[in-house]
Amino acid sequence: MAWDVIIVGAGVAGLSAAMQASRLGLSCLVLEKLVAGGGACLTKQVENYPGYESIDGWTLTRKFEAQALEAGAEIRDSEEVLKVLPAEGEVRVATAKEELTARAVIIASGTREKMLNVRGEKRLRGMGVHYCAPCAGYSYKNKRVAVVGNNDHAIANALFLAEIASEVTIIFEEERLRAEKPLLEKLKEVQNVALLPNARVTAFSGEERLEEVSLSVAGEPRTIKPDGVFIYTDRVPNSEIVDVEKDAEGYILVDCDMQTSVKGIFACGGVVRRNARIASSAGDGMVAALSAAEFLGV
Amino acid sequence: MAWDVIIVGAGVAGLSAAMQASRLGLSCLVLEKLVAGGGACLTKQVENYPGYESIDGWTLTRKFEAQALEAGAEIRDSEEVLKVLPAEGEVRVATAKEELTARAVIIASGTREKMLNVRGEKRLRGMGVHYCAPCAGYSYKNKRVAVVGNNDHAIANALFLAEIASEVTIIFEEERLRAEKPLLEKLKEVQNVALLPNARVTAFSGEERLEEVSLSVAGEPRTIKPDGVFIYTDRVPNSEIVDVEKDAEGYILVDCDMQTSVKGIFACGGVVRRNARIASSAGDGMVAALSAAEFLGV
Repeated sequence: MAWDVIIVGAGVAGLSAAMQASRLGLSCLVLEKLVAGGGACLTKQVENYPGYESIDGWTLTRKFEAQALEAGAEIRDSEEVLKVLPAEGEVRVATAKEELTARAVIIASGTREKMLNVRGEKRLRGMGVHYCAPCAGYSYKNKRVAVVGNNDHAIANALFLAEIASEVTIIFEEERLRAEKPLLEKLKEVQNVALLPNARVTAFSGEERLEEVSLSVAGEPRTIKPDGVFIYTDRVPNSEIVDVEKDAEGYILVDCDMQTSVKGIFACGGVVRRNARIASSAGDGMVAALSAAEFLGV
Repeated sequence: MAWDVIIVGAGVAGLSAAMQASRLGLSCLVLEKLVAGGGACLTKQVENYPGYESIDGWTLTRKFEAQALEAGAEIRDSEEVLKVLPAEGEVRVATAKEELTARAVIIASGTREKMLNVRGEKRLRGMGVHYCAPCAGYSYKNKRVAVVGNNDHAIANALFLAEIASEVTIIFEEERLRAEKPLLEKLKEVQNVALLPNARVTAFSGEERLEEVSLSVAGEPRTIKPDGVFIYTDRVPNSEIVDVEKDAEGYILVDCDMQTSVKGIFACGGVVRRNARIASSAGDGMVAALSAAEFLGV
């Protein structure tokens, strides 16, 4: 049996698309590599989603999931999609467990952290080098950590870590921080966060776990010795599973209706938008579902 | 003094853009013809906005407005924008009261109801011919009304009117209703709604107020005598105020980043999207604000 729509990824965009597609009467299966909620469920405090002045990402994405289920969508956690292949009048979706068929597919596979690609990073990953503060942050109670990055995510996670660690250093390449005003204002009120501008990480070293971080600060070498480092620089779109037109960095190219270069395949959320926010992903998902329904003649 | 951003319209898209632009540190003025909230604040029950299983449009848009104000945006109600004119390195915005200047403008002016353009419609507008059930519906307690249209809006408003009026007839040109499944299911549970498919309104007549509606039903003339008629067919984008590229129906053409054909002018929400929903407008507004900030080098 072919599904009307298969959605790849149960993050914000996928759950929004699933709810709307189901409300339009389409049979709808969502395949999620990990757990429903995606990157947003790790955000401690969401303040820029219209409708909630302040809510944690976990609670918000539970609501998204409940609405998608209530509308009739089926969500399968821990089922990773390996390949999406357009075939004659349908689209085949291969997972590690099975091969499925749909009349339309919506790619909502989001992004993953981008490694800095410096010496020692891969070897010390999880041993002092981390990419998720809510996952690994609590092991650094009263210890010293560094955050690498200059964006809303980096600042929000530095603020989160400042409540746990004794000292947080934000390492960034630019002259000044770039983030939403409310985040920068909160940062000013916190005593244990230091800024290290014009700085680039050149290597991580340590025997069994991270001992030292080598930097280039304004062109001069310097070392610091935090207990842990959290990296929030660029992200990489999870777009390898499908052959559609993409930009140089791998983001899927779509038009205003979330249509990709291949008929019957739509994409939405972080995998199409470098600067995705929860609201833009929810909106993109809604649009993708409406476009898929139109494509299917509903 | 030039504002960083002037937003035309305080509907869902405009309020979302205002919140995000303000959070990015931009000075932001929102000009609204009527009251903040736009079309969405007249929706009795919103079920497809991710984050709220069910909420009335008024309450939801009050939250949107509060967040925009909290973020620092200024919102001026009852200030209609007459013209948006790009000038050297800035954009001029003329209202009935004053001329303002901004470094970037976001058009979020939404849509308005489209008249059927049949005989008697203009003359009897407000005298039995209506375009807003929450505004005029309560005058039809225990009376008979008709709804013209075949879309989510028409069905949702027919359901709303069914709680007030004794009898509701839905008049539509197609063979069957096209709307979200949950709306169609609710319709089945209601006893006092009748369907009149394959039907087109050809005229309204009456001396001082509506007395008779002339129809063409499957090509044959017929008349009905409801006490009031509510029209929910197509919408018209409020795009006359600005000279940018538009499609044949007047919807403003934007790319995926909500950039119009004129540098420094962005557009979002119903004025760019024929099938806008609250979530898509909130997302579009967010994207427009991020694009405007990038344009302004923030």
